[in-house]
Amino acid sequence: MKNLIVASTSTLHQGSYLDYLLPELEHLFSQSEEILFMPYARPGGISHDQYTAKAADVFKKINKKVVGVHTFDDPGEAIKNAQAIFTGGGNTFVLVNALHQLGLMQVLREAIFKGTPYLGTSAGSNICGPSMMTTNDMPIVYPPSFKTLGVLPFNVNPHYLDPDPNSKHMGETRETRIKEFHTQNTVPVIGLREGSWLRVRAEKIVLQGVLSARVFEKDKTAYEIESGTQIDYF
Amino acid sequence: MKNLIVASTSTLHQGSYLDYLLPELEHLFSQSEEILFMPYARPGGISHDQYTAKAADVFKKINKKVVGVHTFDDPGEAIKNAQAIFTGGGNTFVLVNALHQLGLMQVLREAIFKGTPYLGTSAGSNICGPSMMTTNDMPIVYPPSFKTLGVLPFNVNPHYLDPDPNSKHMGETRETRIKEFHTQNTVPVIGLREGSWLRVRAEKIVLQGVLSARVFEKDKTAYEIESGTQIDYF
Repeated sequence: MKNLIVASTSTLHQGSYLDYLLPELEHLFSQSEEILFMPYARPGGISHDQYTAKAADVFKKINKKVVGVHTFDDPGEAIKNAQAIFTGGGNTFVLVNALHQLGLMQVLREAIFKGTPYLGTSAGSNICGPSMMTTNDMPIVYPPSFKTLGVLPFNVNPHYLDPDPNSKHMGETRETRIKEFHTQNTVPVIGLREGSWLRVRAEKIVLQGVLSARVFEKDKTAYEIESGTQIDYF
Repeated sequence: MKNLIVASTSTLHQGSYLDYLLPELEHLFSQSEEILFMPYARPGGISHDQYTAKAADVFKKINKKVVGVHTFDDPGEAIKNAQAIFTGGGNTFVLVNALHQLGLMQVLREAIFKGTPYLGTSAGSNICGPSMMTTNDMPIVYPPSFKTLGVLPFNVNPHYLDPDPNSKHMGETRETRIKEFHTQNTVPVIGLREGSWLRVRAEKIVLQGVLSARVFEKDKTAYEIESGTQIDYF
């Protein structure tokens, strides 16, 4: 059965990397000694090794070993055999490009369906929906496809931001962008504010964290759901 | 010779559609009675007809007729024969998808090189660079390619936004995003703030409007250029 944490962000304002999630991660990864890290999203363009070291540093605090998937000759086998998997944030286009080019999208999907505990943050959460089409990232590479894992029945918009009523900027608000998505697509979208995450166990998906989340369905007015809500109605 | 206005935005805060640019547009389109409008970016998902009517409304003020390219059986011929062309903003992915699928990217490029006066705003400006990879838009459709007109020797980032020092949001700043672009690409990027535009005559490109623009070159510190600067050093 599926067993995931799908988080809006890895880091809160004035927090350190993953600190707000660590108690949850102890549960998620309670049966795992070693976590396979997917560093492909390369935030700020850092190397796979640098990014893996950053993740390893944090998981030391809860006595977990972290190994980068890029260090394996056969990353697909590494995913199949992993005790647990963590896909870090960064640029979703770079991440999705790597997963498709290395032929890892399907194998990662299968591992998650098989029950391998999975943590995604930001770009690593974006890929849990059917497509990466609600990412906030800049399209700095051209991936072979925008299709992603489809382990959730909706798309995620991480780092969801409410419109700033005082803004003088004329670029689209996040809500406008997601509404534009629905002129071209029918899949629902959950706007996850920073500090929120989805806890997925089998087909049960529950919103966690202190904030509400914003739900966008095609041809409906967007609405809020409170923390603790089970999202099972799509 | 090339003859373009490449604008960050169509509309300023508290302004109306294109009003701040109208004096410039009278010059750009002084030899044109009719402007061919490219409505493909469909801001907010509005129809091609609605969007064309919006553009026609404004150009009435300077006695120009506006015709939507979508009303022609052969839009490629319409572009070839156009007295002047305006590509409006909206979603860059939707725009680029339409231009590639209809086979119009190359014919539009040729018209601009031939000297057809061209106005681009926002998404219509994004496509003037070699690629759309520095758009701010959400990837709501999957275009056949990210390659664009390449009538400028650099990419444009329209609606350029400075980092907000008071922000508690952990999503990437615009500067961070463009730096990430340069981990994957070498082409320079001009961040055009709202109210700025590039005036292109043949190979001469001059920054116009009251604000400075921010220039990003790979492996260099980003820097400002003042209004009036001729950008000829790439």
